[in-house]
Order: sequence, then structure tokens, then C-alpha cells
Amino acid sequence: MSNQTQAHPAASIREAIDDNVVIFDTTLRDGEQSPGCSMTTPEKIRVAETLEAMRVDVIEAGFPIASEGDFEAVNEISKRIKESVVCGLARAAAGDIDRAAEALKPAARRRIHTFIGTSPLHREFQLQLDKEQVHQRIIDSVSRARRYTDDVEWSGMDASRTEHDYLFRCVETAINCGATTINIPDTVGYAYPEEFADLIRAILNNVPNIDKAVLSVHCHNDLGLATANSILAVKAGARQIECTINGIGERAGNTALEEVVMAFKTRGDLLPFKSRIVSQDIMKASRLVSAITGFKVQPNKAIVGANAFSHESGIHQDGVLKNAATYEIMKPEDVGLIKTSLVMGKHSGRHAFKKKLEELGYVLGDNALNEAFIRFKALADKKKEVFDEDIVALVDDEIAGESQRIRIKDLDIVCGTKRRPHAEIVLEVDGQDHVASADGDGPVDSAFRCVQSIVAHKAELEVFTINAITEGIDAQATVTVRLAEGGKSVVGQAADTDIVVASIKAYVAALNKLLVKRERTAPAALSA
Amino acid sequence: MSNQTQAHPAASIREAIDDNVVIFDTTLRDGEQSPGCSMTTPEKIRVAETLEAMRVDVIEAGFPIASEGDFEAVNEISKRIKESVVCGLARAAAGDIDRAAEALKPAARRRIHTFIGTSPLHREFQLQLDKEQVHQRIIDSVSRARRYTDDVEWSGMDASRTEHDYLFRCVETAINCGATTINIPDTVGYAYPEEFADLIRAILNNVPNIDKAVLSVHCHNDLGLATANSILAVKAGARQIECTINGIGERAGNTALEEVVMAFKTRGDLLPFKSRIVSQDIMKASRLVSAITGFKVQPNKAIVGANAFSHESGIHQDGVLKNAATYEIMKPEDVGLIKTSLVMGKHSGRHAFKKKLEELGYVLGDNALNEAFIRFKALADKKKEVFDEDIVALVDDEIAGESQRIRIKDLDIVCGTKRRPHAEIVLEVDGQDHVASADGDGPVDSAFRCVQSIVAHKAELEVFTINAITEGIDAQATVTVRLAEGGKSVVGQAADTDIVVASIKAYVAALNKLLVKRERTAPAALSA
Repeated sequence: MSNQTQAHPAASIREAIDDNVVIFDTTLRDGEQSPGCSMTTPEKIRVAETLEAMRVDVIEAGFPIASEGDFEAVNEISKRIKESVVCGLARAAAGDIDRAAEALKPAARRRIHTFIGTSPLHREFQLQLDKEQVHQRIIDSVSRARRYTDDVEWSGMDASRTEHDYLFRCVETAINCGATTINIPDTVGYAYPEEFADLIRAILNNVPNIDKAVLSVHCHNDLGLATANSILAVKAGARQIECTINGIGERAGNTALEEVVMAFKTRGDLLPFKSRIVSQDIMKASRLVSAITGFKVQPNKAIVGANAFSHESGIHQDGVLKNAATYEIMKPEDVGLIKTSLVMGKHSGRHAFKKKLEELGYVLGDNALNEAFIRFKALADKKKEVFDEDIVALVDDEIAGESQRIRIKDLDIVCGTKRRPHAEIVLEVDGQDHVASADGDGPVDSAFRCVQSIVAHKAELEVFTINAITEGIDAQATVTVRLAEGGKSVVGQAADTDIVVASIKAYVAALNKLLVKRERTAPAALSA
Repeated sequence: MSNQTQAHPAASIREAIDDNVVIFDTTLRDGEQSPGCSMTTPEKIRVAETLEAMRVDVIEAGFPIASEGDFEAVNEISKRIKESVVCGLARAAAGDIDRAAEALKPAARRRIHTFIGTSPLHREFQLQLDKEQVHQRIIDSVSRARRYTDDVEWSGMDASRTEHDYLFRCVETAINCGATTINIPDTVGYAYPEEFADLIRAILNNVPNIDKAVLSVHCHNDLGLATANSILAVKAGARQIECTINGIGERAGNTALEEVVMAFKTRGDLLPFKSRIVSQDIMKASRLVSAITGFKVQPNKAIVGANAFSHESGIHQDGVLKNAATYEIMKPEDVGLIKTSLVMGKHSGRHAFKKKLEELGYVLGDNALNEAFIRFKALADKKKEVFDEDIVALVDDEIAGESQRIRIKDLDIVCGTKRRPHAEIVLEVDGQDHVASADGDGPVDSAFRCVQSIVAHKAELEVFTINAITEGIDAQATVTVRLAEGGKSVVGQAADTDIVVASIKAYVAALNKLLVKRERTAPAALSA
């Protein structure tokens, strides 16, 4: 291939006529892969439904060969999602591709995403294959994927560190074998924006059949450049961005969906590109992913951080009051940040509660609504004002408690500086009551010891955080507990005005999930 | 001024001969301005000393006219910092500049940073001044600042949204009046990298005397582009970056110091720029700022997030074991992330403890060392293994407890699901014991009510978070409490194996700080 200096016709046509950018969300695959972000199948389904409602074009639902759990999640999501394309990941191996195809079978629109490392480091150390062998695997894998669906994506892992000529050849081959999307990952978050845009231009200019595929980018944020890399790549001619809610993902995470979407929306003057995303759903999706994974968004996170739309300094506040545009380039409403005036309290009825839930994006069945309403009333007895955040926590709690083999019936605690903390607990396990008591280093530790003496397990406590979810002294606290046992980790969450009670509830919620995971998963080897 | 197409000689000389980028840290000014980030003077001094040790070139220590507290902090930092330039902020007003100069008087190297809004929105709505009036204020303010020091920085607030010709004229005037650094803020985080680099190039090409000043950039992260904007600006000829530790700051925050520093270090091939920063101090500074402000860094934050250097997926782990370079572009040691093998326990002696403290960057006086050692021993009795994080929490606690008008002598708690939570407390206030008991919605609530019945205050609880600081069931928890009263907010932190005890300690620590703040601060009007 010659190094043409003129733009390939496909590039300019693409730029001129097509300003739609495909949003490919990988929260459930690359996001879920990050330490502490693993989700259960019902949780993944909730995320997928939220993504579909916000009009994500492609939902990467998992890596079906990785485990039974991953297969099940992709399969269940495939049954439910109608609008968005559902995508499953597969290495360049027949078994991976067949398994992905099987999981995706029920999907209305399915994509198989197959990848292989193309950079020297990946070929030599990860795969121990030479250039020709890798090239042959691309032919085999893409061709095989095309037998199952005509929507096939191929990724050259670590593409940004691959020899250009070799990468052009691999891309051309993948397209010849039927790939309709070509993804260029910056796997290690190494690229610099202008360099990455140059690579995209080089591919458009040097791969003769590139007009037959959509060019995609997949950036990581190790140097804080993922958003810029993605946007400059689109300006250079890419038309798909792979991203995640809150930017979760391996190490420093992936490109944040909310950042690229709002950059296009806010800077339409310079960046005349459109996504189909309903930006008003951004906060809802952000909160959901944060609640499920237990991954807090830092206050100064762009778009979705708690401070992103708040103004502290006197000068700024003054300016905002005079004209919001002096310091605000986006409206909080554009990302779904609405301060509702409807504060709930003990006199709020079932109808108002149901309406409030709908406003917050929850549609519950009658039973779930009844249970949630009972808990809401109990909470309203303790708290003067019940805020939206309280209700979200309460309902998330309800939904999270899918499996309830273990239930707390009674809990009694003494602690302080005068005597050694002591707990007494009554647990119902599979319908039977068990009583235990124990001392510990703190009230939570003593209660955890009680639970452990009843339900034996070797899980390690990896994360334990408590956040007040509303302001004021009568706030509820949400507790997040992450337990790990034999390489599997689970997150339990619970809210209560008593932090000790919330802690034990969260711990028991995590244990319940662990029991479910123990039954379901049997991990496949991943080092092939 | 004509629109030259050739680069101004200064630009090319700057690029050719000078690849050193000045790192201007504004953690203590723009960072401290973000909601919930306010710090006490002793805390600011600790941050400033850490910044100096990591070789930050310029430390913006505060906005002296804003309050007595800000003045005091800038003044105290000026007395202590010898290597770094200490900078104070001032609006384009004589009173501001005089006050900044007074605060900076003791500094070995001092800079006055004066700013005024130059964009149409800021002129019209914020200042209600026309172009000529703003221009005149630049002349007056920069000239006045030069009377006090020959290191004067001028900023055109909202420069990225200012008419180019007018901005060029303002910059030229500021330099003529003696400004030695010209800062171009993207105040609202609106700029897009290529556009922002074009603005920098335009200034270098159109301001005739630009070779007499260092060109600086100050970016905000509202669209997730601050790091890219700063780096592309340097490539275009800027030679100072304004940034903060952990990227804290108004709204979505400022450019993160750690990201630009590590981008230069990691991509020296494409970005041949140098900073003087000791990158190995990055984690220490990040943890310190996070501990003092109570602002948690999200796990997927670039460089300093807990996951930034961890690898979850089987494929990635496999690759890292085969060759770290397959997935790692930076070494954890480069940012000061060291897993030390020396785990402390109950048999560790005073000498080992002192050595460990030094390793962690703490040099304590004899008294402080004794007290810390006693607390370490008490902790080691409760915990099998005492990790670095435990020791950091313990010492931070020690240092944070500067003022101790209120002390907890005794605390007794009952709670659970069986009875209403109840607390009894003995507090020593100014040397006198007080006893109180109260019921509440939870153990913490009841104890807070006891404290409030003894020490009357109207402070609102703004933030209440608990984090386990080490893994495992015998972990210590760190509690962060933020209280706000009459526009002032304070953060208290404490660690204990008992989360209820840690909560009350943190609450009392915050109250102690509030009492200090009540005495010291008298805010000046900021809306002039």
C-alpha cells in the first residue's frame, strides 16, 4: 500500500455526509471487568434496559466464553433488548465465537465483536504468534463470526502501538472477510490526541476498502486523555465511540459516555456530530451504575460529579445569579439533574409515592410497590423529609434483595469507649432461625462475627464504605460492602438511619449474592 | 495588529530552546474554592510544604482579600516556603492588590496574580464595564502590582470566550505594564483542544511583545478535556500550566497536576517537555489533599485512582505477568505507589515505628511521636496487622487534632433492631466534664444529639462518609464529617476500629475546628 497524501474518498464522504456517531457502550463488558465492578445478571439487565432507554446504539453485554454468568447475562439481555444492537465479545478462537453466537441468538439485532492483539508486544508476549499467524487468525475469526450475523466488529488490540503497515493490512483483511465495524483500541491509554487522530486519518487514507466499514475507537484514560482522543478521532473520520457510564473500566477506565455526548452537544459549533443519546437520562444511568457497582463518582467528575454544576466562590455565585451563561456552559436539566420541589414526608400517600417513583424512572409491579411503600412509611416516621435520594436507595435496596436465603430478624448491639463491643443476632437461614452472639473490635465487626458463626464462609471484606445519602443529622446512610471468595466478588448495599443496622444488612445482602454466585458460576480458562 | 501567518519569532524560539514547563499549583486557591474543600491554615501549610517538596514552581496560596483566614494562610505560607514562588490572587482593584502584597511580604519569592473578566459576558453581566474601562483597569492593576514585586501574573478571565483582537490588545497592555506571566483561563471548561491550541498560537503570533512574558493556561474539566487542552497549549507554545492535585476545583475541577506531569514523562517521544516535579511524590500529595478535604478520589481516576494500576481481567493479568509493558505504560513506583513489605504489628518497637513514619514522609517531634506510638500500640492490640494506611490515618488524626477544646471522655451506645438507639456521653469542654444522654434514629444520631446538647451549635451536617482504610474484617474505618455554619465549612476526620466511636470523634474534630473558625474569620465582601 502506498502512503497517499490525499485523503481517501471514503474519508471525505464520511465527513461530509454522515455526522452521526454510533455510541457503543461497554459498561457491561470492559466496565464490569474493572476491579470491584462485577454485577449479577439481574443488575446487568437493569443497566441494559437503562442504556436502551437512553438510546445507546450498541450495548456490549459481556464476554460469553468467560464464564457461565457472562453467558447467561448476554443471553438474558439478548431476550429483552429490542432497539439497541446487543454485542458479545470473542477472542479469535472458534470456541469463543460459537459461544458468543449462541448467547446472542435471541437478540433482535446482534453483533459479534472479535479481537486479537496486533502490536509487537501483544504478538510476542501475550500470544506468542508471529505476524502471519495473527493475520490468519483474523481471517478465520471474522469469517466464522460472519456465518452467524452480518454485523461483525473486529478490533486490533493495542492498535495504537502496532506498526502502521501491518495494522492497515489487518484492517483490510478483516473488512474483506466481512467485518462491518473496525475498532482501533488504545488499549493501554497511551495515545496523545493529535497522534491518535493521525492514526485514524492514516487508516482512512491507506486501507482501500475502508469505505465498507464504520471506523470505531476505544480509548482508555490512563493519562486523562480518553475523551480528547475519542473526539479528535471522530473529527478525523471515526464514526463509533466505545465508552462506559462514569468512565468505569480497566485501570483508569474507558472514555466516559457522558463526556463525549455532552461535548458534541455543547460544542456543536466546532464539532458538528450527533449522537442519538437522550442526554436527560445521563444522571439516572450514572446513579444506577454507581449504586450497582458501589463505585462512587468523585465530586469533581465532569458532567456527573456532585459538584459539576455547583458554584462555590462568591464571584462565581454572583456571576451565575446575574447571568447563568457567565459560568455555565451546559444546563443541569440537559443531563437530567432536576431539583424537584416535591419533597415526600409521612403524610404522602401511595399515589404520590407511585408518581414520585415514576418521576425517578422506576416502574414497579404491585407487590414491589407495596413493599417499597411500607418501607417508605417506616422511613418517613424516622425522617422529617424524605428526599429523592432516600427513595432511590430504598427502591434499589428492594430490587437488590432478589435472593433472600439469609434474613436478619433481630439485632442488638452495645458499643462505645467503656466496654468491648458486643452483638447479638437472630438470622433466618433457609427458613430456620439461628441465634449467635459475639464480641469484636467494633459493633460491625462483632455483628459480622455473629453472621459468620451462623453462615460459614471464607469471603474477604474488600470494600466497606458508608455514605450519608442526604444532608442533615437525620440522614440515611447507604453502606456498600464488597466480599470476595475464590476470585468472585459481590457487592451488597443497604440503607438505614442506623449505620450499624445498614452495615449488617449490606453484609447480608452481599452474602446472599455470594450464595447465588457459588451455585451459578464456573469460570472458563482465560489464558488461551 | 495584523494577522501574521508566520509564527512570531518568540514562539519558535520558545519552542526550540525552552522545553521547561512551569507547574503552577492552585490547589490552595481554585481547589480550595470548590464546595466542601475549604481548609484551615495549618492544613494549607501542610499542603504547601508537600507541594514545595515535590518541586512545584509556583504555589498559589490563596486570595488574601477574600477573608481573614485566606490572608493568614497566604501570610503563614509565605513565611515558610523558600524554594517555590508563593502567589496571591487579586482582582483588578487597588485594595485587592495591596492586601495580596501585604500577605506575601515575608515570602522569599513572591508573585501577585491579578485578573479581570475580558469576555463580553463577563464585561457586561459580571462587571458592567465596557471594553475601555476593563482595559484601563488592566493598566492600573498590573502597574500597581509591579510596585510590590517584579513577578506579576495577569489573567484575562474567560479568555477563551473573548474577542481575539481585544484579548491581544489586553495581553499587550498587561505586558507593557510589567506582567511577566500571561495566563489564558478557559474559565468555564468550554474549549476544545485544537481550538485552544489555535488561540495560544494566535496570541504568540499577534501580540508583538509576547516574548517578554511566559504564556500560561488554566483549564477547567467541565467536558473532560482539561488535560488535553493544557498539553496541546504547551505544544503550541505555552510554558506554564495551572493545575491542582487530584484535579479539585470549581465544578468539575481544574487540570489535574498528576495527569499533565505523567503525560510529559510517559510521552517524552512526542511531547518533549519537562517539569521539575518529583513524580514519586504524587501519591503522597494526592492522599494528603484527599484526607484534608474529605474529597475521595474515584477508583478509576487517572494516575491516582485506587484501580489506576490494577488489572482485573484474566487476559490482562496474564499479559502483565508475561511482560508488564503489555498493559502498563507507567510504573507504579513512578508515582510513588510502593507496596512496602514491612507490615507493622504489636511487636514492632518505637524505632521501627519511627522508621516507618519517615518512609511514609512524616517527621514528627518527640511529643507527637510519643503520642502517635501510644495510639499505634493500642491499635496493634486490636488489629493483627497494621498497614501503612492505618498509620497514615493515625498520624493524620494526631496532626488534625490541633485544637482540642472539646474531648470525648466516655461514650456508651446501644442500638440494633430491637430498641431505639440510645447514647450516653461524657465530654470535657474547656477542661470541664459534661454528661448527656439521648435517643436518636441511629447510634451516630443519638451521640450527635448528646454532643449538641452540651455544645450548642447550628452547624449542618453536609457530608458524612466512612471508608474502611484497609481490607479485612478487623479494618479500621476513617470517618469524614463536614459541618457548615453560616457559610463556613469544616471537615473533621477520625479513625477507629469502631465506626460509631470514629464517627463521634470525627464529629468532635469538626466541631473543634468550627470553634477555631468562629474566632478567626470575618469574610470580606466579594461581589465588588
